Amino acid sequence: MSRTPPDPSKGRIAQSMGKAKILMEAMPYIQEFKGKTVVVKYGGSAMVDENLRHTFAGDVALLALVGVRPVVVHGGGPHITRAMGQAGVEPQWMDGLRITDSETIRVVQTTLAGEINPDVVRLLGSHGALAAGVTGIDGALFVATPLDPKLGFVGEITKVNPDLIARMLMEGVVPVVAPLALGEDGHVYNVNADTAAGALAEALQAEKLVYLTDVDGLYHDLGDRDSLIQRATVQRLRELIGSGSVSKGMLPKLDSCISAMEAGVHNVHILDGRIQHALLLEIFTPQGIGTMIEP
Amino acid sequence: MSRTPPDPSKGRIAQSMGKAKILMEAMPYIQEFKGKTVVVKYGGSAMVDENLRHTFAGDVALLALVGVRPVVVHGGGPHITRAMGQAGVEPQWMDGLRITDSETIRVVQTTLAGEINPDVVRLLGSHGALAAGVTGIDGALFVATPLDPKLGFVGEITKVNPDLIARMLMEGVVPVVAPLALGEDGHVYNVNADTAAGALAEALQAEKLVYLTDVDGLYHDLGDRDSLIQRATVQRLRELIGSGSVSKGMLPKLDSCISAMEAGVHNVHILDGRIQHALLLEIFTPQGIGTMIEP
Amino acid sequence: MSRTPPDPSKGRIAQSMGKAKILMEAMPYIQEFKGKTVVVKYGGSAMVDENLRHTFAGDVALLALVGVRPVVVHGGGPHITRAMGQAGVEPQWMDGLRITDSETIRVVQTTLAGEINPDVVRLLGSHGALAAGVTGIDGALFVATPLDPKLGFVGEITKVNPDLIARMLMEGVVPVVAPLALGEDGHVYNVNADTAAGALAEALQAEKLVYLTDVDGLYHDLGDRDSLIQRATVQRLRELIGSGSVSKGMLPKLDSCISAMEAGVHNVHILDGRIQHALLLEIFTPQGIGTMIEP
Amino acid sequence: MSRTPPDPSKGRIAQSMGKAKILMEAMPYIQEFKGKTVVVKYGGSAMVDENLRHTFAGDVALLALVGVRPVVVHGGGPHITRAMGQAGVEPQWMDGLRITDSETIRVVQTTLAGEINPDVVRLLGSHGALAAGVTGIDGALFVATPLDPKLGFVGEITKVNPDLIARMLMEGVVPVVAPLALGEDGHVYNVNADTAAGALAEALQAEKLVYLTDVDGLYHDLGDRDSLIQRATVQRLRELIGSGSVSKGMLPKLDSCISAMEAGVHNVHILDGRIQHALLLEIFTPQGIGTMIEP
Amino acid sequence: MSRTPPDPSKGRIAQSMGKAKILMEAMPYIQEFKGKTVVVKYGGSAMVDENLRHTFAGDVALLALVGVRPVVVHGGGPHITRAMGQAGVEPQWMDGLRITDSETIRVVQTTLAGEINPDVVRLLGSHGALAAGVTGIDGALFVATPLDPKLGFVGEITKVNPDLIARMLMEGVVPVVAPLALGEDGHVYNVNADTAAGALAEALQAEKLVYLTDVDGLYHDLGDRDSLIQRATVQRLRELIGSGSVSKGMLPKLDSCISAMEAGVHNVHILDGRIQHALLLEIFTPQGIGTMIEP
Amino acid sequence: MSRTPPDPSKGRIAQSMGKAKILMEAMPYIQEFKGKTVVVKYGGSAMVDENLRHTFAGDVALLALVGVRPVVVHGGGPHITRAMGQAGVEPQWMDGLRITDSETIRVVQTTLAGEINPDVVRLLGSHGALAAGVTGIDGALFVATPLDPKLGFVGEITKVNPDLIARMLMEGVVPVVAPLALGEDGHVYNVNADTAAGALAEALQAEKLVYLTDVDGLYHDLGDRDSLIQRATVQRLRELIGSGSVSKGMLPKLDSCISAMEAGVHNVHILDGRIQHALLLEIFTPQGIGTMIEP
Repeated sequence: MSRTPPDPSKGRIAQSMGKAKILMEAMPYIQEFKGKTVVVKYGGSAMVDENLRHTFAGDVALLALVGVRPVVVHGGGPHITRAMGQAGVEPQWMDGLRITDSETIRVVQTTLAGEINPDVVRLLGSHGALAAGVTGIDGALFVATPLDPKLGFVGEITKVNPDLIARMLMEGVVPVVAPLALGEDGHVYNVNADTAAGALAEALQAEKLVYLTDVDGLYHDLGDRDSLIQRATVQRLRELIGSGSVSKGMLPKLDSCISAMEAGVHNVHILDGRIQHALLLEIFTPQGIGTMIEP
Repeated sequence: MSRTPPDPSKGRIAQSMGKAKILMEAMPYIQEFKGKTVVVKYGGSAMVDENLRHTFAGDVALLALVGVRPVVVHGGGPHITRAMGQAGVEPQWMDGLRITDSETIRVVQTTLAGEINPDVVRLLGSHGALAAGVTGIDGALFVATPLDPKLGFVGEITKVNPDLIARMLMEGVVPVVAPLALGEDGHVYNVNADTAAGALAEALQAEKLVYLTDVDGLYHDLGDRDSLIQRATVQRLRELIGSGSVSKGMLPKLDSCISAMEAGVHNVHILDGRIQHALLLEIFTPQGIGTMIEP
Repeated sequence: MSRTPPDPSKGRIAQSMGKAKILMEAMPYIQEFKGKTVVVKYGGSAMVDENLRHTFAGDVALLALVGVRPVVVHGGGPHITRAMGQAGVEPQWMDGLRITDSETIRVVQTTLAGEINPDVVRLLGSHGALAAGVTGIDGALFVATPLDPKLGFVGEITKVNPDLIARMLMEGVVPVVAPLALGEDGHVYNVNADTAAGALAEALQAEKLVYLTDVDGLYHDLGDRDSLIQRATVQRLRELIGSGSVSKGMLPKLDSCISAMEAGVHNVHILDGRIQHALLLEIFTPQGIGTMIEP
Repeated sequence: MSRTPPDPSKGRIAQSMGKAKILMEAMPYIQEFKGKTVVVKYGGSAMVDENLRHTFAGDVALLALVGVRPVVVHGGGPHITRAMGQAGVEPQWMDGLRITDSETIRVVQTTLAGEINPDVVRLLGSHGALAAGVTGIDGALFVATPLDPKLGFVGEITKVNPDLIARMLMEGVVPVVAPLALGEDGHVYNVNADTAAGALAEALQAEKLVYLTDVDGLYHDLGDRDSLIQRATVQRLRELIGSGSVSKGMLPKLDSCISAMEAGVHNVHILDGRIQHALLLEIFTPQGIGTMIEP
Repeated sequence: MSRTPPDPSKGRIAQSMGKAKILMEAMPYIQEFKGKTVVVKYGGSAMVDENLRHTFAGDVALLALVGVRPVVVHGGGPHITRAMGQAGVEPQWMDGLRITDSETIRVVQTTLAGEINPDVVRLLGSHGALAAGVTGIDGALFVATPLDPKLGFVGEITKVNPDLIARMLMEGVVPVVAPLALGEDGHVYNVNADTAAGALAEALQAEKLVYLTDVDGLYHDLGDRDSLIQRATVQRLRELIGSGSVSKGMLPKLDSCISAMEAGVHNVHILDGRIQHALLLEIFTPQGIGTMIEP
Repeated sequence: MSRTPPDPSKGRIAQSMGKAKILMEAMPYIQEFKGKTVVVKYGGSAMVDENLRHTFAGDVALLALVGVRPVVVHGGGPHITRAMGQAGVEPQWMDGLRITDSETIRVVQTTLAGEINPDVVRLLGSHGALAAGVTGIDGALFVATPLDPKLGFVGEITKVNPDLIARMLMEGVVPVVAPLALGEDGHVYNVNADTAAGALAEALQAEKLVYLTDVDGLYHDLGDRDSLIQRATVQRLRELIGSGSVSKGMLPKLDSCISAMEAGVHNVHILDGRIQHALLLEIFTPQGIGTMIEP
C-alpha cells in the first residue's frame, strides 16, 4: 500500500478521524452477519448501469472480505431479449411468460451462461473478490420439471443440490449463479431467477435473501408513493398479495420470500438497486433502504 | 439394479465369465492410474458426432467412478465459426490465427461458456458423472497477456491458479474447462485449447495429458500412412518438429506436450478420437491407440 | 504397464471395443455399491479348489479397487478336521456340533489363525489387494459366552467391537477375519463362521452379506433341482425354515440372514461358490447367481 | 440490529453514500492485512486517558473482527509507581533501570497481572472483542535470566514459547499479554514491555509491530519538531542510534525494532498514541501517522 | 534421565519390584479416569503450607501427565484480607459476606489475578505441568449479576462460557481459574470460589468435582469426630442441610455439590487438604479420604 | 472402582503416602517417554513362565495406558520345536540355522500366527490393553528374499511397510507382531525375530528397542559374571563383536542393535526378562537393569 504523508493541518487529521468513526459504526453489523450467508438476486438497473454495476461489485467484495458469505444469483431479461433479436428468434408469450422452445432455450442458455455469468464473475474479480460462475446445471444444482407443457423449457425447481455452492462459501469463493436447471428429462430448463434465489437461500439456510429491484420497495397502496412499507411480516405479505396491491413482476419475489422465510431464512429485503451501494448500506448501516420482511 | 434370471444354458454362464475376465484385465490399469489426474483435451469429431460424444462421456464417467481424476478441457472451433456466421461477424485471419476484436471475443466467450461448456457438463451428467463447468475466468484460473497486439484478444497464458480445479478433483467432481482467460488488463481473452490443456496439466502435476484428435496419431512421414508412430520420446518430437514433418494444427499440441513433459507430466497421448472409446481403451487396456509420448 | 501395438486389422479394434462395452456395463453396479461394505463368508470349494481360490481373490481385489469395501470372513471345516487328525485328536460330536475341549480349541485356533488366515491374506495380496488378517480376539472383535456348557469352547457371540475393522475399511485395507472369539471368561472360543459373518455385517451396517456355498442356492423343494429360488423375502425364508425344506448346514446361514436383514443389511446372497467369479458376477453384472434375499 | 427509517431528504441518502465510500476505501488495507498478525505495544496516554482507551479498544476490536490478528502487549510504568507508593516500597534506580528486589517484583506482578491486564481484557470485551489475559508465566511464554545481578528480578528474555498465543489467534481470541517472565530459576521476572512485544512479534512471525507512544514519532533532529521522520530503513535507524539523536526511552523500542525486522517482521510503526484511532488510521487508511520502519 | 547402577544385593531388586507393584495398583484408576475432567477447588492449608503446596502441585501434574484433565479453581480468603490490611481498606461484613465496594473489588481483583493466580501457575509449572492462568473475565468465562445490591460487587454467576477452558484441556494445558466474573454491567465481580468451581464442573460436564478443605470431611453429627461420613447420596446431603448439622463454610460447597450432581457431574469429593497427596490418593488408590458424594 | 474405608490408624495413611511418593518418582520417566514408540522383542522365559508372562503383560499395558507406545515382536523358538515334534517333522540344521523346507515353514507359520500370536494378544487384553495381532504378511509388513538358498524359506528382510503398525499406534492399539515375511516370490518366509524387531524399530523411528532375554546383559568378559556392562556405546559393541566375547545367540541382537542405532533409534536395551517387571523398571525407575546401548 502506498502511503500519504500526514497533513500537518488539523483539518486533515480531523477528517481521518471522521473516517475512523464511520468504520466503527459498521462494527455491530459486521459482528452480526459474519459467517452468515446472504443470497442476493442481482438484476435490473444494477446490472445495466455501469456506475451501479461497480458499486454493487464493490459491495459484494467488501461483504466477502469481512467474512459475510454472499451468493449472487443473476437474471437475464433484457440481455436475452436482445440476444433473441440478434438471433432472429421471435419471442412468444403466454400469460406473461415466455414460451421457450428449443431454439429459445439455446439463446437463453448461451446468454446466461456465456455472456452474463462470466461478465459478473469478471466484474467481481476486478473489485478483488474471488468469484466463480456456476450454472444450475453444474453438479445438478437445480433440478426441474416443466412448469407447464405449453411453455416448453420453462422449469419449476424440484430439487436443489447446494453442496458445490456450500463448499465454495467455505473456501471464501463468491458463487455467481445462472438460473438454468437440469430437467429430470436431461434437457436444460430456464427457471425464474427470483424463484431460484429463494430456493437456493432455503437450501443454504441463508441468513438473508436480498432482491435488488428497480422499485423503491413495497407499497401499502401501489398508487401512493408515500405508502412505502419499511417492514412487513410474512402475514402482512400474504394480505398484500390477497389485496391485489402487488405488481405482477413482484409476485414471484413475494412467493419465494414467503417460502424462504418459512424454511428458516431470517429476513428478506426488497431493495432499490438504483441507489448506489444499496446492498452495503442496507446490511452495514442503520439506514434501512427499501422493505424488510421479518417473521 | 434390476436382476436378470440366470440362464440355465451353459452358454450364458460362459458368456458371463467372459465378462468377468475382461473386468479382471482392466485391474492393473486401474491400480496404476487410481488417484492420478488425467487432463483430456476434448475436440474434433468426438465433440460433434452424437455417437462418439456419448462413448466419450461414458469413458470419462467410468474413469472418474473407479478413482482416476479426469479433467476435460474443450475447444470450440466449428461452433465459434458457426456462431460468428449467425451473428454476422466476418472472421479475419493473420498467419492462420483469428484476429479477435471485441465483437469476436464476445461471440467466442458466449459460445464457449454459454453453449459448449454447459452442453459438455450435461452430457457427462447424463452418464452419471458429477461434472461442473469452469471458465478460465473463474477464480482467475488462466491469466493471460495479448499474444500479439495485432491479434486483439488472443491471449498467452502467463499464470495458472489451479486451486479451484484441485478442490473439485478432491471432491470427485469432473471439471469441464472452457479455454478463456482473464487478461492482466481485466479483459477476457481467448486462449488455444491445446495450450490451455497443457498448462493445466503442468499446474496440476497431472499423470497424463491426452489429446483427442481427428488424426490417427503422429507419423514419421506425413505422406506415409504406414509410418504411424506408436511411441516417441520428447527428443524425437523435437526432431519431428525440426524436420517439418508435422502438420500445422499439430504444432501447438506438440509444443504443449514438450512443455508439459518437462514440467513433470508422465505421458502425453495423441489419440484418434474418431475411434469409439479411444480414451478408455488407451488407459484401461493393453491395446495402444495413437501415439504415446514418453520421457 | 507394457503396451501392445494396435493391430491394424479391424478385427482387433472391434474386439477392443467389445471390451470397452463390457466395462461400461459394469458402471451402474459400481455406482450403486461404491463406498458400501460387503461382508463375504468365504468357504467350501472356493477355499479349496486352486482355480476358484484365485478367481475369488481377483474378485475381492477388483471390488476393493473400484471402491467397494469387502470384508472376508473365512471358515475352516476341512482344514480343522485334517489338523485334528494330524495332531491325533479324536473329534467328538453332539447334535452335529463338535465338542470342543481345550485340546480341540488349540487345534482350531492354530488352524484358523495360523494356517488359513495368513494364506487368505497372502492370496489376496498376490492379486494386488492390501489385506490384513484379524482374529475375533484382536481388539476383542467378537466377545462370546459358551453356547452350551456340554460343547466346551463353542461360543455364542454376545458383543461385536467393529472399530478395528471399520478403520481398516476406511484405509482401503481388506480385513480377513478368523471366526474365533474372546470369551467373557478370557478363553478363546470357536464361533460359527456363518454366524460371525452375519454378526459382523450387522455391526458394520453392511450393504450386503454374501455366503459363498457349495450349493446352487435355496430351493422351494429340496428334492427338485428345478425349484431354485432366485429371490426370496425374509418372510419367505421364515416359511421355508418352518416347512423343513432347508438342509442342516443351511440353517445357521438363514438364521444369520434373517437377523442381519432385520438389523439393516440390505440384501443377503447365497451364491454357488463353485462357479468362477460368482462374487463379481453377482455384484457387477445383471446376471443373478444363486438366491438373493430382500426385505 | 435496530433500524432507522430512510430519510426522504436526498441529504440523508447522500450522507449514507459517503459512509459507503469510506468503507470502500478501507478495502485494500483489509485485503492486505487479513490473516496477518499485528503485535501492538500498548502504553502511555492511550492507556490512561479514558477517551483514548476506548478508541484504542474499538480499533483493536475492529481489526480482529475483519480478520486481522492483533496481540496487545501492555506496559505498566505509572500504575506500578503508584502501587509501590501505596505499598510503601521506595523505588531504587541504577542507570535509569528500577532495582527490583523481591518486594518490588511482588508489586510489579500484582499490578501487571492483577490490575492492568484484567482491565485491558475487560475494556476490549466491552467493545465486542473476545479477549483473554496471558502473563509471560502462562505456558512459560517468556523465559528469562537476570539482566544484571545488581538489578534483581529484571529479566532478559532467553526463550519465547508462543504456542498458547498462536492457538488463541487461530481461534479468533485477542491475547492481552503482561510483561512478566518465568526465570530459568523458577522466579518471576519483570521484562521490558517494548522488548517483550518485539520478541513476541519475532516468535509469531508477525506482519507488523506497532509501538503506541506519547511522541509524534522519530526525528532526524530531536530539537527540531519539523524533522519528523515518516519512513526509515533499518540502516537509517542504526545511524540515528549512532548519532545520539534518540531519546533514552526510545532506545529499547529501536533495538527491538531492528531485531524484529531482522527476524522477518515486515514493518515496525512508532505511532503517536495521543491521536484518537491512531492504530486504525495507520493500518486502514492511506494517511500515515508517526514513523514507519521498513526493510 | 540419569541412571543408577542396579544394586547386586537382592534387597535392592526386591525394593524395585515393590515399586512396580504399586505402579500396577494405580492402573485401574488411570484406566477409569483417563480423558475425564476433574475440577479441583483449591484452598485452605493446601494453598498456604509450603509442603502441602508442593505435594498438591505434584498430584495435579501427575494427573495431567497420565491423561486425566484437571482444572484448578483457587480461592483467596486470607490473601485478600491481608492485602486489604496492607491497602488500609477496612473490611465490612453483612450476614457473613464481605461488602465489596469499588475499593474492595480492586484489592480482590489484584490479589486473585495478580498474586495468587500467577503463583499457582508457577507452582504447577515447577512440577512439570503446562499450566495457564485464566480469570473469570477472560473470554467472559463467568458472567454475573449482583447477588444482593447491598453487597456491592459480589456476583451470582448467570452464565458460564467454558470454550477457552475446554480448548486448553484438549491441548493438555492445566487451566488455573481465579473466581472473578464479568458483570452484565461490565464491572468486575467477585464470586464464591466454591460456587465457581461447581458451575464450571457443570459447564464442562466434569467427571468429578473435588473440594480441598481444612476439615476431615462431612459428619453425621458435627460434635462427634467419630461420625465422619465416607459416602453420602445427594438425598442424604439434603437431609444434612435440613438438619442444621453443617457448618456455615460448608454450605456453598454442598449447594454447588447438589447442583453439579444434578447437572451430570458423577461424583463430588470433600477432601482433607491437610493430608499430603490427598488428591492423588483419593483418585488413584483404593483408600478413600474424606467424603464422597454419589448420585 | 470399589472403595476401602480410610484406616484411622496413622500407619495406614503413612502407607498410602508411601504409594503416592512412588507414583511421583515415575513422573519424570513418563514425561520423557510419553508419545514415544518402544519396540520390545518378547521371548525367552518371559514368554514361558506363567508369572513372568503376566508381569510382562501388565508392564506393556501400563506403558500404553500412560501414553508410551509399545510394539511387541515375539519369537517362537521352543513352541516351534515342540510343534515340529508333534507334526513329526525332523528339524535339520546348517551352521546353527534351521533348514526350513515347505513342510517346516507350514509349522512355523501355524505356530507363530496361530498359536503364539493370539495367545499374546489375549494375554495383553486380560491386563486391559487393546492389542491386535499382525503377521509380517499383513499389509506386506515385512518383505523378504531368501537368506541363503540352502536354508529354504528363511528370509532376509528387504523392505518394511510400517503404515498399518503406525496407524494402530496412533489409535492406542498395541500391535503384536509375528516374525513372518512375505517373500518377493509370494511365499511365506520365517525371519529372525531379533532382526525383525530391529528393522521395525528403524522403520518406525522408535525411541527405544528393548530385547527381553534370558541373560543378565552383556559382559566385558563372557567368563566373568562380575563384568556385566551397564552402558555401552555402539563403538564398544563393535569392539565386543570383534573380540569374540559375544555368545552366538546374542549376535543377531547386536547386529540389529547397531543397525537400529545408526538409523536413529535412541537407545537399545538388553534386559534380563527373568526379572519380574524388568521392562517397567527399566523404563520407569532410576534402577537400570541389564545393558543399555547409547550412541
